[in-house]
Amino acid sequence: MNRIGLERKVLNENDRLAAGLRSRFAASNVLCVNLISSPGAGKTSLLERTLESFDRDARVAVLTGDIQTENDANRLRCYGFPVRQITTRGTCHLDARMVERGLEDWRLTDLDLLLIENVGNLVCPSSYDLGEAAKVVLLSVTEGEDKPLKYPSIFFKSELMVLNKIDLLPYVPFDIAAAEENARRVNPNAEIIRVSCTQKNGIAEWLAWLAARRDRMLSGRTSAV
Amino acid sequence: MNRIGLERKVLNENDRLAAGLRSRFAASNVLCVNLISSPGAGKTSLLERTLESFDRDARVAVLTGDIQTENDANRLRCYGFPVRQITTRGTCHLDARMVERGLEDWRLTDLDLLLIENVGNLVCPSSYDLGEAAKVVLLSVTEGEDKPLKYPSIFFKSELMVLNKIDLLPYVPFDIAAAEENARRVNPNAEIIRVSCTQKNGIAEWLAWLAARRDRMLSGRTSAV
Repeated sequence: MNRIGLERKVLNENDRLAAGLRSRFAASNVLCVNLISSPGAGKTSLLERTLESFDRDARVAVLTGDIQTENDANRLRCYGFPVRQITTRGTCHLDARMVERGLEDWRLTDLDLLLIENVGNLVCPSSYDLGEAAKVVLLSVTEGEDKPLKYPSIFFKSELMVLNKIDLLPYVPFDIAAAEENARRVNPNAEIIRVSCTQKNGIAEWLAWLAARRDRMLSGRTSAV
Repeated sequence: MNRIGLERKVLNENDRLAAGLRSRFAASNVLCVNLISSPGAGKTSLLERTLESFDRDARVAVLTGDIQTENDANRLRCYGFPVRQITTRGTCHLDARMVERGLEDWRLTDLDLLLIENVGNLVCPSSYDLGEAAKVVLLSVTEGEDKPLKYPSIFFKSELMVLNKIDLLPYVPFDIAAAEENARRVNPNAEIIRVSCTQKNGIAEWLAWLAARRDRMLSGRTSAV
């Protein structure tokens, strides 16, 4: 088998597992969101702001992926919700089997929302379906406004772009209008929310997006029945 | 053949081509440096500061990799040196064959220095030898001081870490001492240069490093004869 054939087989196997996860999430009314970005764009910070905003009885859990270290899970556990680290030990993305294992002893019926933080990588994670309802891409204003054009796959596949670190706009050469135009050139349907996790701007809009997205999932399922 | 077997075969083929490139660079006294970082950490900006610092008769060329767009080559061509874009069309790293093709009609004997800007990705490029004399990793202070621990492979394999965007230190929660300690935990021999491409700090040290690294390559070769 040639390289492309093998890659297709690996991806097909992943798609099969992801479809199984998607059915399980739907059966339990769990909204699953897959957060993808470059290293250091602020995925963990966004999760911190998200978890701290929830009441203690919120039905939310986090799977957080990294190549090495338990740092992110350690940062996120203090909010009192279930958090599990997936350490890929070299692999540049999460795949559906890692998510399946990560969920092993959790009951999905205890959850409304599952947030998955992918490995920091703007390329490879876009090829691996994790059974999520939606991919969300984070872009930080320090990375430059051309990134949607240079890494189009993940911007094309994401329902939402979170434009993070807007508190740094006065200090960096970043054209926010051009960034948003570039994102919409790649994906005309993309929603965009401007966020600063350090200044806590845009967090309410992000939480509203999550709530609306879950409502949409549930009503879509109802109307499809 | 299983997945790991095939991956090894692909890497072995890459190593063979990279060894050929390394011989050609050595035979022509060309220092080849492979720049690797997250998207938006400042590889192209560092190349801009580098090229603008050289006299017009400097014997330097650039190969710049991206998944899509010719943006980087367009940014770099104005300095008057040979620049070629390698567009990978989806592939998450450069490999030795792409470099070989990128060099096709260039005479290495016209060069002292070849700078290769890899695809923005802190993971996959570390596995692909391009025949370079040295890998250099860029980390920007907006990405967080934990990145050497989370992405150890590239920090382990790089001779130099360029810590970029230090002009943003007053505005971001970044512990520079911890970042440098983390880098040295992964690679005790790593050299570190603090740089701001926008404020032009540390550029002289970077140019001095390049010059000293080429001298070291030449003297190593001479003493080996």
